[in-house]
Amino acid sequence: MVKYNESIYFDRVLYKQDILGSIAFAHANAKNGIITQDEFEQLEKGLLQVQKEWENGTFTIISGIDEDIHTANERRLGEIIGKDVAGKLHTGRSRNEQVVCDMRMWLRDELRKIDEYLVSFLKLIAARAESEIDYIMPGYTHLQRAQPVRWSHWMLSYGFAFASDLERLREVIKRINRSPLSCGALAGNPFGIDRIMMAEELGFQGLLWNLMGAVADRDFVSETLQWGAMLMQHISRWSEDLIIYSTAEFGFVRNADSLELLRGKSGRAFGRKAGLMMTQKGLPSIYNKDLQESLEPMMDHVKTVSDSIQIANGVLSTLTTVPEKMKASLDPLMLATDVADYLVRKGVPFRETHHIFGRCVAKSEETGIPMNELPYETLKAIDERFEEDISEVFNYEASVESRTAKGGASKAAVPEQIEVILKMIE
Amino acid sequence: MVKYNESIYFDRVLYKQDILGSIAFAHANAKNGIITQDEFEQLEKGLLQVQKEWENGTFTIISGIDEDIHTANERRLGEIIGKDVAGKLHTGRSRNEQVVCDMRMWLRDELRKIDEYLVSFLKLIAARAESEIDYIMPGYTHLQRAQPVRWSHWMLSYGFAFASDLERLREVIKRINRSPLSCGALAGNPFGIDRIMMAEELGFQGLLWNLMGAVADRDFVSETLQWGAMLMQHISRWSEDLIIYSTAEFGFVRNADSLELLRGKSGRAFGRKAGLMMTQKGLPSIYNKDLQESLEPMMDHVKTVSDSIQIANGVLSTLTTVPEKMKASLDPLMLATDVADYLVRKGVPFRETHHIFGRCVAKSEETGIPMNELPYETLKAIDERFEEDISEVFNYEASVESRTAKGGASKAAVPEQIEVILKMIE
Amino acid sequence: MVKYNESIYFDRVLYKQDILGSIAFAHANAKNGIITQDEFEQLEKGLLQVQKEWENGTFTIISGIDEDIHTANERRLGEIIGKDVAGKLHTGRSRNEQVVCDMRMWLRDELRKIDEYLVSFLKLIAARAESEIDYIMPGYTHLQRAQPVRWSHWMLSYGFAFASDLERLREVIKRINRSPLSCGALAGNPFGIDRIMMAEELGFQGLLWNLMGAVADRDFVSETLQWGAMLMQHISRWSEDLIIYSTAEFGFVRNADSLELLRGKSGRAFGRKAGLMMTQKGLPSIYNKDLQESLEPMMDHVKTVSDSIQIANGVLSTLTTVPEKMKASLDPLMLATDVADYLVRKGVPFRETHHIFGRCVAKSEETGIPMNELPYETLKAIDERFEEDISEVFNYEASVESRTAKGGASKAAVPEQIEVILKMIE
Amino acid sequence: MVKYNESIYFDRVLYKQDILGSIAFAHANAKNGIITQDEFEQLEKGLLQVQKEWENGTFTIISGIDEDIHTANERRLGEIIGKDVAGKLHTGRSRNEQVVCDMRMWLRDELRKIDEYLVSFLKLIAARAESEIDYIMPGYTHLQRAQPVRWSHWMLSYGFAFASDLERLREVIKRINRSPLSCGALAGNPFGIDRIMMAEELGFQGLLWNLMGAVADRDFVSETLQWGAMLMQHISRWSEDLIIYSTAEFGFVRNADSLELLRGKSGRAFGRKAGLMMTQKGLPSIYNKDLQESLEPMMDHVKTVSDSIQIANGVLSTLTTVPEKMKASLDPLMLATDVADYLVRKGVPFRETHHIFGRCVAKSEETGIPMNELPYETLKAIDERFEEDISEVFNYEASVESRTAKGGASKAAVPEQIEVILKMIE
Repeated sequence: MVKYNESIYFDRVLYKQDILGSIAFAHANAKNGIITQDEFEQLEKGLLQVQKEWENGTFTIISGIDEDIHTANERRLGEIIGKDVAGKLHTGRSRNEQVVCDMRMWLRDELRKIDEYLVSFLKLIAARAESEIDYIMPGYTHLQRAQPVRWSHWMLSYGFAFASDLERLREVIKRINRSPLSCGALAGNPFGIDRIMMAEELGFQGLLWNLMGAVADRDFVSETLQWGAMLMQHISRWSEDLIIYSTAEFGFVRNADSLELLRGKSGRAFGRKAGLMMTQKGLPSIYNKDLQESLEPMMDHVKTVSDSIQIANGVLSTLTTVPEKMKASLDPLMLATDVADYLVRKGVPFRETHHIFGRCVAKSEETGIPMNELPYETLKAIDERFEEDISEVFNYEASVESRTAKGGASKAAVPEQIEVILKMIE
Repeated sequence: MVKYNESIYFDRVLYKQDILGSIAFAHANAKNGIITQDEFEQLEKGLLQVQKEWENGTFTIISGIDEDIHTANERRLGEIIGKDVAGKLHTGRSRNEQVVCDMRMWLRDELRKIDEYLVSFLKLIAARAESEIDYIMPGYTHLQRAQPVRWSHWMLSYGFAFASDLERLREVIKRINRSPLSCGALAGNPFGIDRIMMAEELGFQGLLWNLMGAVADRDFVSETLQWGAMLMQHISRWSEDLIIYSTAEFGFVRNADSLELLRGKSGRAFGRKAGLMMTQKGLPSIYNKDLQESLEPMMDHVKTVSDSIQIANGVLSTLTTVPEKMKASLDPLMLATDVADYLVRKGVPFRETHHIFGRCVAKSEETGIPMNELPYETLKAIDERFEEDISEVFNYEASVESRTAKGGASKAAVPEQIEVILKMIE
Repeated sequence: MVKYNESIYFDRVLYKQDILGSIAFAHANAKNGIITQDEFEQLEKGLLQVQKEWENGTFTIISGIDEDIHTANERRLGEIIGKDVAGKLHTGRSRNEQVVCDMRMWLRDELRKIDEYLVSFLKLIAARAESEIDYIMPGYTHLQRAQPVRWSHWMLSYGFAFASDLERLREVIKRINRSPLSCGALAGNPFGIDRIMMAEELGFQGLLWNLMGAVADRDFVSETLQWGAMLMQHISRWSEDLIIYSTAEFGFVRNADSLELLRGKSGRAFGRKAGLMMTQKGLPSIYNKDLQESLEPMMDHVKTVSDSIQIANGVLSTLTTVPEKMKASLDPLMLATDVADYLVRKGVPFRETHHIFGRCVAKSEETGIPMNELPYETLKAIDERFEEDISEVFNYEASVESRTAKGGASKAAVPEQIEVILKMIE
Repeated sequence: MVKYNESIYFDRVLYKQDILGSIAFAHANAKNGIITQDEFEQLEKGLLQVQKEWENGTFTIISGIDEDIHTANERRLGEIIGKDVAGKLHTGRSRNEQVVCDMRMWLRDELRKIDEYLVSFLKLIAARAESEIDYIMPGYTHLQRAQPVRWSHWMLSYGFAFASDLERLREVIKRINRSPLSCGALAGNPFGIDRIMMAEELGFQGLLWNLMGAVADRDFVSETLQWGAMLMQHISRWSEDLIIYSTAEFGFVRNADSLELLRGKSGRAFGRKAGLMMTQKGLPSIYNKDLQESLEPMMDHVKTVSDSIQIANGVLSTLTTVPEKMKASLDPLMLATDVADYLVRKGVPFRETHHIFGRCVAKSEETGIPMNELPYETLKAIDERFEEDISEVFNYEASVESRTAKGGASKAAVPEQIEVILKMIE
């Protein structure tokens, strides 16, 4: 039963946030006269020493006593500065508000690191999209060859998914980074404590405005897990593509190790999110012990996401592309739209073009001549609106270059996409 | 098998967006010279007539032919203006981009309605928090009576959860409302179409910048479902509280009909989200038919959320509060923190206060005298630092009023909370 | 609000079960003397007429009045036989027990149909595994070619997954098919009703033994949804394989339409399950209206699973295999294990074989000669334990035939697998 | 990256199964002549020594080398008996089949322990239901008082849910306990190994019959997690009831510690299941590294379920019931059905009884006299079919005792329920 309840073996990573939060609280209590300036200084000095012990690896957890990081820090503080003064640390503060304050600070700090990893990954995507712009590959729908595109166009399709993840991440951090301090049990602090001073000291941007809600709110964790589950889904789809592209049958890329692990981790991330939402479902308001189940998922999830972005970065930075295999996979049937567009330009109604192309395909199969090598006369016989310039259509590069729309596959459109991504990173 | 694929019976609600999207596309094609101005006018006129038929309820779906709203509209357009011109509507546009354009427009429009429902609900919460500010009730932790608070404090704890939902909703709408038009199959439009003009005509704020990604992206649905699942979870918890408060045993409120339905619907909302994420997991990029499974969940989810907010509004607007039952539930043991705070102010170290209170409880149980009626002398005998002013502490109103921190339960803190919420609504 | 609560538009499919349940209940009430034999006969006659109206399509739902199938049937019964006798139908029976009885009967009946579809599908798998036993294809690990196997071996790998689904299905049906009748509100029927007689009349095998639990139990739905979510996951993986095998790059099969829809539906099935579990989480016991959210998921899920098995059956029955493409994908590197096994038989320790094979690969790449064409002398030079019979190892058929273990890929092992599956079907 | 892949810190709990599996495999290889009898004996002796080192706590994991339990055991075996013979251990066996064999054995063993915990818990429920059969409490629907029942009736309603969990558990174990050994990579063992002998040696009951499926099948984990998620949901609902019953307002039980933790853990269990299903979704068949994500969820889930049942047992064995509070919560309005039943027996049509009771309630409210104390004349004035014996109806005990149906709340029905449960345990 003790073990069922104990959390020190994973929540100790909060040691720094726990100590900073305690110092800020003591500081505010000193300002209010609840403790003396001298007591505050003793508390601060003691707490900083505890912090140093954690950093040096000299802090010794006492199993069975130090059930969580908060009791551990308090126990040690008492040993250092004496129980009399140490006992005043908690005046007007509840354990529950302390926990949630630590969690918010820690998560904010970790997500800022993840922001950096994501920015690096996006820069790498942009760089490869730029340097490998000349590679042309089949674009697939239904996993069937559909239209020729630039490899960069594929790369950037994921680039924008990850850039949206970054956009969302910053919105999430903004909501996490609000101060819950001074909740007390639920009704709020009675000593006129200065919430704004504490919030500023701890780097919070703004306050949570209802303290009964704040003490038991775990939406900031839920929202993070939802965010991460979606990012991991992007990683899973990116991995799936690369796994398929690295089969012997496709052969577009090589050395795509770790992709299966990445793809698999998306399940873990989703599971943590689904689990937390299940835990929260229908809970009576304010604090319930069920919420202990938010801490471990938060930490595990942050680790999963953080590791995965860095590993995806590693995969991409060492990924070998095989442009000749991409090229070998191009197929004249992929130019169906180009032939249709050609005919449209010659005045053929769009709906008719489909049937004409169908007859070309049939002729190609009947004669065994690849469609792009069918003589002009043969095509003319199929439909007299074909002219000699049809030969220009049977050119993969030309097909790609015709896609000039903003966001399209042409050589001009790619750098514009890169520019937009780089702006989203800033 | 036809039925497995058919969607007209739910996707027909997109009729208007489908028609507006087609008009904008034809308009841009006219500007580019792909169709003539006269053709455009015929298309526009025909499409507006189709729209009118839907609005009048005179549009007849032909089962087995009109498999989805897009084929239905096109079939009818052809009947009205002839197949020759109607056949040009689709020039340079893919079915997949049309679908996703319709979905984005529809969802944006629906979520803007939900924004309004949410604003109304928040105003109602604020209004009741204001008018019922005098009611004092037990605040619970672990569903045990913990501290006296204002009923308004409880109400606003949910108010802020819903206000955060509103904040998030607006972020989601912003991301939905970007134009995918001109994706084509995946490589982009080849006729130099004016994406910005189309986007403006349809009310989009900005473009999607990679068209291969845009054609198969359903993150805007996923994100909406995640958003709604969290909102529904708030509704489930709010309902749970009110269900408990309306038992014969608690009795704080009456007429709390429909709350079980609301609580139950949170499962449905979560399920739709979980289902869509499962469908998307590990899909190869670009369009796959799996994505058809995004449409029905989107519509069902929007309906669930939209109905639920309105019903919650209805519940709250007719909810009867029973302040005398709230008051009757207050209990002197809930003043433990207040006694501790009193003793702290008298110079007792915080850690000691707990034991002193414990002795008071014991004395009360031993003598059968409720703690707030124990004679001053009895208390003094327990700890001599009790003075006569301890009697002022045994006052629920005073306890609440001591919670002066921003966001706290006191009479002054409530209007400030209301002000913050009303600002978030703007 | 009415609509939020109304279910007639989906629960009307229960009409038959509802009527049979009512007849059985009335029958038992007649036996107990709660109603007369004559009243019972009127009730039965009236109910059978209502049933006929549903079957003929002449039953008219009165919107706003007939909120669910139970009220609809009762309303109509009253019109037919008069309200006086009709009003006795419900004596000693609660609406909640009626609902759950209908659900159990309906689900049992539907799952028995699904049992049949699954049996057909398994027979088809077995038949193709038998008739196409000669086709040899690459078996993949990590989606990389690993070892040659029979196409039938692949087919049966899914066969056993589906056979386990069938095994589980029968266990689920057994638990569904227990009678809840006579729950009353929760305490049980007070008229000494004969539960066993009613159960037998309705085809139940056994009783539910605690009526407070029975009235609000939806585990039978949950369990069905879990069962179906797993089956749909098998379908999603089977589809994924076939989608990859039908790419231009692999080309092992053709005409694999509908597979993406099948793969996508697995998300829907999972979502319904996850949603129902969320709805049930933490509910207070006995009946709560939240449980209305079990009906629609149950029906939608049954439809998804039922349709999907039949469509998968259709896909498989029309699937064209391309054995020459399978063969063309075989690659001598896939014989690594066979070479290792060869060397083990020649006395080389297993751990060493890996390095020897590596040197053969290197030699093959260096000389450009496919490994299976390397002259015996070259191999001998690499390791002198190679003997002339090594040539027999470079034979895909021989490789497959060496896998003689029960459940293996050899020609002898396949029919044994088929036999086991056919026994599981019985 | 190494860490992303490393699993030794959780998979070492498989040490015993890994060693037993290796011995059985070596044994079979000796029988086939792939290794000599002497080599087998060395292997066996060495492996048993490794096992002893784990048991004594003297096994030292070499970080960075021993990435999982399988490499750790092999490394150590090589040190003990020399690499030459140790290197033969793996002949004809793949790592993937080894992993899955260990997992199946471990899970089978753990679930058998859980079976015992569940049996103990059920016996405790049965014992308390028997000893506390005299306590009468309100049965709730919609969390409103509905009908008086025995406390035992409530207890047994969960008893049957847990008994069904036990029934399902045994079905799951049966499917887990089938031997995958001799899969090789996917095509099966080529040395004519005796699968049946190995299976018997390891306690498996039967074989998996398709080895390509067997090597990558994780349905046995999925099924366990689904099973456990449902059990944990029962625990969450049981906890919810007891949490509500232990509020000051209800007060039916005391000392209900740990219930919130139990309720919260149901989310964790669900999350692990949802996560694994997400990981498996749409995976290409046969082995993919994604499946590494099945091991940790399996272990964590088993721990959650195992701990939770034992803690629930602890809670129940120390739970104090307060029968006088239960009694005090009974309310004459709960006898509505009894009055209706009374009137039915007097010949009033069931549908009419509702209105008559409504008039009694109105009269009680109007006069302020509790309904069960209204004079007979007053009732008679409301409806003349009331006779003097109506007073017998206003008796909670009598009401409960009237529920004589099998599975009902009466004193006779409870022991019969207990008997059924005890039979299910056997």
